[in-house]
Amino acid sequence: MAVIEIRIELKKGVADPEGRNTKKALEALGFEGVGEVKTVKVYDIEVEGTHEEAVSEGEEMCRKLLANPVIQNFKVTVR
Amino acid sequence: MAVIEIRIELKKGVADPEGRNTKKALEALGFEGVGEVKTVKVYDIEVEGTHEEAVSEGEEMCRKLLANPVIQNFKVTVR
Repeated sequence: MAVIEIRIELKKGVADPEGRNTKKALEALGFEGVGEVKTVKVYDIEVEGTHEEAVSEGEEMCRKLLANPVIQNFKVTVR
Repeated sequence: MAVIEIRIELKKGVADPEGRNTKKALEALGFEGVGEVKTVKVYDIEVEGTHEEAVSEGEEMCRKLLANPVIQNFKVTVR
């Protein structure tokens, strides 16, 4: 049993309104020097098999369900 | 300039309906041996200062805005 971490980010150039509003809210609370804020979606999933099998299954999950290849990149690692 | 990763997870015992439904959808697509699926919220934030200052500022952001201490744990690391 392995736990894989699937990290799904927006591609460069895709608008991230949640990140932008989070930045505004942080600045309104007095945080200074806040640069870009990016939001990332992460799934931690328990799967069977070796580490290699787990990673390739995670990539398959992204292609079939979890990620939108038009606007998102994904990365699968074993935790 | 450092980029911190703020990882916000649900505490143990808190229901994660999105994770549960993701597990069901993966199984419906034919993925076998899928165990627990946890959803995690991640923010990547550019901040100023040393690594230590960046981490402590990130923790402050969680306490003041990003995390709900009743149901969520957070962890701040420098990327």
